[in-house]
Amino acid sequence: MFFASDNSGPVHPQVLQALTQANSGYAMGYGADAQMDALRDTVRTVFEAPEAAVFLVATGTAANALALATLSQPYQTVFCSDVAHIHEDECNAPEFYSGGAKLTLVPCGDKMSPQALCLAIEGEETRGVHGPQRGPVAISQVTERGSVYSLEELRALTAVAGEFDLPVHLDGARFANAMVALGCTPAEMSWKAGIDAVSFGGTKNGCMGVEAVIFFDPKHAWEFELRRKRGAHLFSKNRFLAAQMLAYLQDDLWLDNARKANANSAYLGEGLHQAGAEFLHKPQANMIFASLPRASHQRAFDAGASYHLWDGPLAGQGDEMVGARFVCDWSISTAQIDEFLALI
Amino acid sequence: MFFASDNSGPVHPQVLQALTQANSGYAMGYGADAQMDALRDTVRTVFEAPEAAVFLVATGTAANALALATLSQPYQTVFCSDVAHIHEDECNAPEFYSGGAKLTLVPCGDKMSPQALCLAIEGEETRGVHGPQRGPVAISQVTERGSVYSLEELRALTAVAGEFDLPVHLDGARFANAMVALGCTPAEMSWKAGIDAVSFGGTKNGCMGVEAVIFFDPKHAWEFELRRKRGAHLFSKNRFLAAQMLAYLQDDLWLDNARKANANSAYLGEGLHQAGAEFLHKPQANMIFASLPRASHQRAFDAGASYHLWDGPLAGQGDEMVGARFVCDWSISTAQIDEFLALI
Amino acid sequence: MFFASDNSGPVHPQVLQALTQANSGYAMGYGADAQMDALRDTVRTVFEAPEAAVFLVATGTAANALALATLSQPYQTVFCSDVAHIHEDECNAPEFYSGGAKLTLVPCGDKMSPQALCLAIEGEETRGVHGPQRGPVAISQVTERGSVYSLEELRALTAVAGEFDLPVHLDGARFANAMVALGCTPAEMSWKAGIDAVSFGGTKNGCMGVEAVIFFDPKHAWEFELRRKRGAHLFSKNRFLAAQMLAYLQDDLWLDNARKANANSAYLGEGLHQAGAEFLHKPQANMIFASLPRASHQRAFDAGASYHLWDGPLAGQGDEMVGARFVCDWSISTAQIDEFLALI
Amino acid sequence: MFFASDNSGPVHPQVLQALTQANSGYAMGYGADAQMDALRDTVRTVFEAPEAAVFLVATGTAANALALATLSQPYQTVFCSDVAHIHEDECNAPEFYSGGAKLTLVPCGDKMSPQALCLAIEGEETRGVHGPQRGPVAISQVTERGSVYSLEELRALTAVAGEFDLPVHLDGARFANAMVALGCTPAEMSWKAGIDAVSFGGTKNGCMGVEAVIFFDPKHAWEFELRRKRGAHLFSKNRFLAAQMLAYLQDDLWLDNARKANANSAYLGEGLHQAGAEFLHKPQANMIFASLPRASHQRAFDAGASYHLWDGPLAGQGDEMVGARFVCDWSISTAQIDEFLALI
Repeated sequence: MFFASDNSGPVHPQVLQALTQANSGYAMGYGADAQMDALRDTVRTVFEAPEAAVFLVATGTAANALALATLSQPYQTVFCSDVAHIHEDECNAPEFYSGGAKLTLVPCGDKMSPQALCLAIEGEETRGVHGPQRGPVAISQVTERGSVYSLEELRALTAVAGEFDLPVHLDGARFANAMVALGCTPAEMSWKAGIDAVSFGGTKNGCMGVEAVIFFDPKHAWEFELRRKRGAHLFSKNRFLAAQMLAYLQDDLWLDNARKANANSAYLGEGLHQAGAEFLHKPQANMIFASLPRASHQRAFDAGASYHLWDGPLAGQGDEMVGARFVCDWSISTAQIDEFLALI
Repeated sequence: MFFASDNSGPVHPQVLQALTQANSGYAMGYGADAQMDALRDTVRTVFEAPEAAVFLVATGTAANALALATLSQPYQTVFCSDVAHIHEDECNAPEFYSGGAKLTLVPCGDKMSPQALCLAIEGEETRGVHGPQRGPVAISQVTERGSVYSLEELRALTAVAGEFDLPVHLDGARFANAMVALGCTPAEMSWKAGIDAVSFGGTKNGCMGVEAVIFFDPKHAWEFELRRKRGAHLFSKNRFLAAQMLAYLQDDLWLDNARKANANSAYLGEGLHQAGAEFLHKPQANMIFASLPRASHQRAFDAGASYHLWDGPLAGQGDEMVGARFVCDWSISTAQIDEFLALI
Repeated sequence: MFFASDNSGPVHPQVLQALTQANSGYAMGYGADAQMDALRDTVRTVFEAPEAAVFLVATGTAANALALATLSQPYQTVFCSDVAHIHEDECNAPEFYSGGAKLTLVPCGDKMSPQALCLAIEGEETRGVHGPQRGPVAISQVTERGSVYSLEELRALTAVAGEFDLPVHLDGARFANAMVALGCTPAEMSWKAGIDAVSFGGTKNGCMGVEAVIFFDPKHAWEFELRRKRGAHLFSKNRFLAAQMLAYLQDDLWLDNARKANANSAYLGEGLHQAGAEFLHKPQANMIFASLPRASHQRAFDAGASYHLWDGPLAGQGDEMVGARFVCDWSISTAQIDEFLALI
Repeated sequence: MFFASDNSGPVHPQVLQALTQANSGYAMGYGADAQMDALRDTVRTVFEAPEAAVFLVATGTAANALALATLSQPYQTVFCSDVAHIHEDECNAPEFYSGGAKLTLVPCGDKMSPQALCLAIEGEETRGVHGPQRGPVAISQVTERGSVYSLEELRALTAVAGEFDLPVHLDGARFANAMVALGCTPAEMSWKAGIDAVSFGGTKNGCMGVEAVIFFDPKHAWEFELRRKRGAHLFSKNRFLAAQMLAYLQDDLWLDNARKANANSAYLGEGLHQAGAEFLHKPQANMIFASLPRASHQRAFDAGASYHLWDGPLAGQGDEMVGARFVCDWSISTAQIDEFLALI
């Protein structure tokens, strides 16, 4: 009954096996390995982007912070949702990597609307040299509240960015979950929708620790490489990052995992609905934000369930509804979900 | 015939096996896993340092830059060898992580002498607020030229730092190689010798990608954690870092690997000596800097040998001596070394 | 009819005269001058703070950014009003000087309430190492909308900061204007109200370009000096900063100027009121935010009046009310105000 | 007898008078003043550079650090003399403003030779992504040891930079002193010699606190403006910076002052020579580095002379030669020099 995060489950066996297979003989370090060459080709094919620059790092925060630093200047501001991971969960990594850029929060609580984004952008840079200059727009897909932008919604956001000539970054820590939810292609959900750079997640969907950063315009490649090295995110034994990502992209493992995770989440959501849970956001991928009576949480925790409450600790005695976040990964079993649902 | 680096060889099978074993069920992320608890205890026992703060990152540059940033201020200067890895091979990572501190290079070409270190320290901060203030002393053990400081030499350097009340960091990317060369304990080569913080390497000696950062005074712990997170070096699936390091420290695997690497290097060195090579530095661990006739290099490269020349590319036609670096890891076989020696 | 800013008026003749008097003979540079010694004593006396550390810089942004950097860490967040000068008008200087700290905006539009501040502080650091840590609270007095916190209000804010053990900075670019509005002493409006550091403005109230930074706990002194030098804000000919500030504090010039500015503003406000202006904020010092019919603005601008519209450019044809900011300094004459009032 | 620095003398009366004249009525802030427009035109005329971007700051460190930050990237290294002001006397300001770039010291002790510069540049960037990338070349004219590069020497240095396609910055804190020493035009000593950006000093030569930063290619203008604001170096009352610099450039005041300073230095140097002083560097502008017997220094200090010893404090009893730095500004009188010479 582990719904705490999609980073708490095991690595998929095929990914582990790929590490073992990669562990034969010698390989040049720092990305000059054959697996990296193969991975670059694979990503370009998957994204229908033969010119794309492709890099690997081990954490999602590194992918986001390095990509945004490459797309911005320290005297700019990055536009993002007020609950964006880059704002709430990266301990100022974007500010650090960008050299002190600001994050302008678009009020939304979940998905950004084009109107809210436009207002936020118009709100900056009316002050000439006094305020920060307009910088990249950062979108999370899946959002931090479990929503998925439709392709139309994505395109509407990037159109706003385009009006102001701003680059767009997509935090795709759960790229695969969003893609299978939309039933679209990687290209449709990225460059065809006006995205300039993607953090393409592997860690939350069956890998051990690997994220790709993809720039559709390769002019950013060398700067990114230098920023990655300077940020200490260039792996000497890069082949083991490449091997993970290769296995992840092979034979649709990434899509299979994402489908399982989303299906698990849908199954859990249906059960929560029947148990009278109130949904705080409409779940569209593999995360659910829902309220349950205090006593239900208590029973679940007592029985060993693991997930995050969203409204602070479970203190007090009353039986009001208490919000929580439930995340399903590819590995969670129906039996575990049933066990949990029986408790609440 | 792969002598390019000790990061180009395979991962030790026991480390790989540990990853597989760690891959069962769910675990809380970001270091709140049972493997990390066990690893912390193990490191404290191995170092006879029950209060030490122990953290894991995936790259040596991250370990160094984060440790130095924690020990310094942006208006200070770090004292290090003029061939230190932190100066030559980290693309300004120490400057980045410290927020713009300077590196003061102690002229040495290899090992720092206490006299040269003292002169360098005295040379700074005679200018009040105008120059940078004196910050940490950074020592590499094994050095970047394959030398090993004796315990006496280490203590003499930390004594100089102590006179100026400066903290001391040890870049131990090859900690195990140095330790078996000296035949001492981890404590003797670290806190008993006056070292405040250690980058304790695993990647170059059989791990996939893991380095421990150890502070003997735990007061630095929380700041380090925040700097690690802000630097995007906190792994969500930290258990796979901990598992590597646990396997590495179990049953003396780390020491066995280092002994093999050093023995391989000694065997190669003896062969090079007999082949008339000139040694640029006295090899004391698993790295050799030696000159060979141009033709010998050419034959070796033609036969597929891999290692770095130290004097630029192998252009020209003459047969003068050309310097090179040869690194042996635990996995290189006597047969490979013999094959190489036969060529030159 | 110059109401654009209190930095667009002339320097007070006594300040200019002090520059001339200071210009005799030689003086050691970088703050080791006799004027600086005298100024330090004067500030300590004025603030009843015999231990205070006192420094001079030439711009308000430098005072704010350096003070906040000294009180914070790069992995923290600074709490401030969502219209704070440090957020809106310093082009990321606080982020730059702090090494990448964040600003958490307290929703208020003008004065912060203790409740809103408390909520904002409670909202951070519920995420352990993932979010930024709580850092200093920054208060502007006079606020950016022309309001003045009462001493009770100030103490209520610093009490909230105190509950979380956070230091408090006061942006006193218009310190004198606030003080005369409250009729209190410098000590009452600073350390007696729980303020740890003050940016004490001179430039907007008759000086040429000088601001004092005052730390009531001198433990911050040396770090501030290093940060000031590193930020390139240490003047070689510091005596000319000290001379300005000395003249400013002598014979209550600072208070006289502030009284004049506030009185001018009150006179203008009364006139605006009678002319049917709508006040966006209750003016309490020397700034007025008020709406006038479009045609009134047009007449004023046509006649050469200078001030900032608050709702964008004066486009269109209608006669709706359009917001504007009017700032009075000590030098503006009643005749100028009358001339302006006659136009609208 | 004040030879401590050319920043310890008084401001020239014409500069002070210009401040008084500028102090009439209102002026838009932040550089939108008429004096700034006039100053920009004047600088462009003086430098025969009608397209140049011209900015004012108040300190030389600000001019240098902001100019270098604009010309560099944080993953680069700046090439400079090992006694450069930017290395020794700015408390890491270049590292701070550049976001963590490195300074590569060209061994010279005074003037850089083209050979030494070339070697230093070749020494970097042989390591691909591992080492810092090559960044700007920084030259001081007058050097920190009182030497002056001939135009030929300057051109030889910029030719080296040009081979590697690196921009060149000139630290001209004593630009006028060098120019009158060479008898050349401003253009000849800057863009015609291959210089891309100049810190054009006023403070050390009769101003109160003002330096111009000049980019001959205006493409850098907007970035510089943003970096200046973010660095808190944009003055609200900019007209008082512009007025100083205008007076400085009017009627050749800057050249007259420099000629006086250099002449004073030559007169002092002749006297020192006759007194048996040993010169550490050949004085070519307004600074002298020379050794005198300990007793001579003692007599001079006892009589109130002020200057910096170069070999540490005047301890001990012997009568060996002790090095010192003597700087003459425009204001020092022959009588003072005679008085000093009589003492030694």
